[in-house]
Amino acid sequence: MYSNQLLNKLVISIFNKIGCSNEDSEIISKILLAAELRGINSHGVLRVKDYVSLWEKGRINTNPNVRIVHESPSTAVVDGDKGFGMIAATKAMQIAIEKAKKNGTGWVSVNNSNHFGIAGFYSMMALEHDMIGIAMTNANPLVSPTFSVERLLGTNPISVAVPAGKENPFVADFSTTPIARGKLAVMDKKGEEAPQGYVQDKEGKSSTDPNILSDGGAILPLGGDRIHGSHKGYCLGAIVDIFSALLSGANFGPFVPPQVSFLPLKENLPGKGLGHFFGAMRIDAFQTTEDFKRNMDLWIDTFKKAKPVAGQERVYIPGEPEREMEEKHKKEGIVILDKVLDDLKDVCDDIGVEFTL
Amino acid sequence: MYSNQLLNKLVISIFNKIGCSNEDSEIISKILLAAELRGINSHGVLRVKDYVSLWEKGRINTNPNVRIVHESPSTAVVDGDKGFGMIAATKAMQIAIEKAKKNGTGWVSVNNSNHFGIAGFYSMMALEHDMIGIAMTNANPLVSPTFSVERLLGTNPISVAVPAGKENPFVADFSTTPIARGKLAVMDKKGEEAPQGYVQDKEGKSSTDPNILSDGGAILPLGGDRIHGSHKGYCLGAIVDIFSALLSGANFGPFVPPQVSFLPLKENLPGKGLGHFFGAMRIDAFQTTEDFKRNMDLWIDTFKKAKPVAGQERVYIPGEPEREMEEKHKKEGIVILDKVLDDLKDVCDDIGVEFTL
Repeated sequence: MYSNQLLNKLVISIFNKIGCSNEDSEIISKILLAAELRGINSHGVLRVKDYVSLWEKGRINTNPNVRIVHESPSTAVVDGDKGFGMIAATKAMQIAIEKAKKNGTGWVSVNNSNHFGIAGFYSMMALEHDMIGIAMTNANPLVSPTFSVERLLGTNPISVAVPAGKENPFVADFSTTPIARGKLAVMDKKGEEAPQGYVQDKEGKSSTDPNILSDGGAILPLGGDRIHGSHKGYCLGAIVDIFSALLSGANFGPFVPPQVSFLPLKENLPGKGLGHFFGAMRIDAFQTTEDFKRNMDLWIDTFKKAKPVAGQERVYIPGEPEREMEEKHKKEGIVILDKVLDDLKDVCDDIGVEFTL
Repeated sequence: MYSNQLLNKLVISIFNKIGCSNEDSEIISKILLAAELRGINSHGVLRVKDYVSLWEKGRINTNPNVRIVHESPSTAVVDGDKGFGMIAATKAMQIAIEKAKKNGTGWVSVNNSNHFGIAGFYSMMALEHDMIGIAMTNANPLVSPTFSVERLLGTNPISVAVPAGKENPFVADFSTTPIARGKLAVMDKKGEEAPQGYVQDKEGKSSTDPNILSDGGAILPLGGDRIHGSHKGYCLGAIVDIFSALLSGANFGPFVPPQVSFLPLKENLPGKGLGHFFGAMRIDAFQTTEDFKRNMDLWIDTFKKAKPVAGQERVYIPGEPEREMEEKHKKEGIVILDKVLDDLKDVCDDIGVEFTL
């Protein structure tokens, strides 16, 4: 168990050392630790090594000039200037919130960015303003659309956060695939088979090998196969790609750059970096906040109290499991795997930061 | 085979006869026939009988005063005044488009409405304005969230239409479940079993009985079960419900009124009618339309040319199968099942409209 505070200090030192400002280092660390606290450790400090190594290859600008390059009263396009995704994403979501304050809603598409951590961090930024927050991002291609052998989409997550009254907010945050890549890696390490409907092999045949991505295989869209609605998962992944990259001028589909340094950048890309999309909708641009929150409380209460199926304790509200995990981790500390700790130590040795936890 | 024109004339006469204005009757018929042409006959003239019978029970206002009840520069709430859903939905989408012209985007949530036909009709209204169109609606509860025995959500469809350049537009239009109710009815008639992952029985156990809904069963969210990501399908259905009904003040979750007259209306409902949500985003509020369309053409071309899996001819772009169907039906005419024709004849006899096709 490691304390949130000490981990935060260490991660800030690392990003500071490679040239990020204090403010930017704090933002990056906060978002990585939000993932750890919420139990999504595939998007936590595990990523530090990859991030630093992208910087070493010259693929990250640690001093980006994140700026609006085009706008209308309710929209903007933001150029992330090749910085870490968290910097562009935080600023873009702030812009969406400001536009929503003035004009009811704000919608910001971001180009020239990189991996931004958990989508839920940004959607939740809207909650304190009594707004619905929306965040999505495209990602490097690992997913084959229905009937395709080729990998053309990322796991392209969507997050939507909705404020409530007495109840905790509703926070959906999910990839548009049955499973994220990180969980396949865990199955592989444990020697487990992947369930049917997760992956296909390099010829597009159904597979249960969790390591099949390393042999030309692909993750399937949410739904798994055509009979179970994979064309709907494909639509969702495509919509995230279009909103994040076609509206912003980022790379899309198979052109999205990899977020690990051992995979080379393709040449002659059609866009800049990877793309995100953010939205903020002010509740009182539709309903009185009071009415909305009262109804949202009733919605949550109704779903919470639904009779569960045999063998399950209850029906969960989106965001509930992550919030419970967060409370636990804040009290008890964060579990970091030995392998991840070793990687963090290596990074510290490499760039000359003292490793203390 | 029946001609689109003659069917249109008949359907207009029916809605005219029950009190809809010429203009409204034309809108309703156009949207029902758009469904027939696109091959989505579960949302076509099959519905006329249910619609008329809801009107006979006094649950439809055929002369609604559809109006904005609240607005901001980029948002509005529209009261559908208990009319047919198509009337409120068409007007709401027009409002979204007008707001997008002025402020970049427009977002309209609708209360006090009814079944609106196919979501794709409304999202596609944005295309001729060089905008992305979005349409969604909640629906009467047939779907159990992950781990719930109770039916708390509708099949809550989402449609997103995106303009392209030389290529045809991208049009996604899908329910947030593996299958729509209509397809279960077809399986039942044919004596087929439903695939695993479509439905559960009244105790929440997996079932393959396509008629299980009539015995307290439920449709499952997209993903099917927890292992295959049904919690993501549940999130999607919930987001549609919140945008359509909590933002507008319509009924939500298990309170959404049934769209068939043989099921009674519940008392003490928390909202008004059912709800929809529409969005329009002007492309040039983000990118030049020219750049966007060129990239969208490249996106479509890249996905179209992807190598298909064995046994499949090609990878489809969302909207492609429906458009091909539309071209075919426009040439060859529309197939109407005998049962549906008989129902139409009954309706005509009942209200005193001459049946000619």
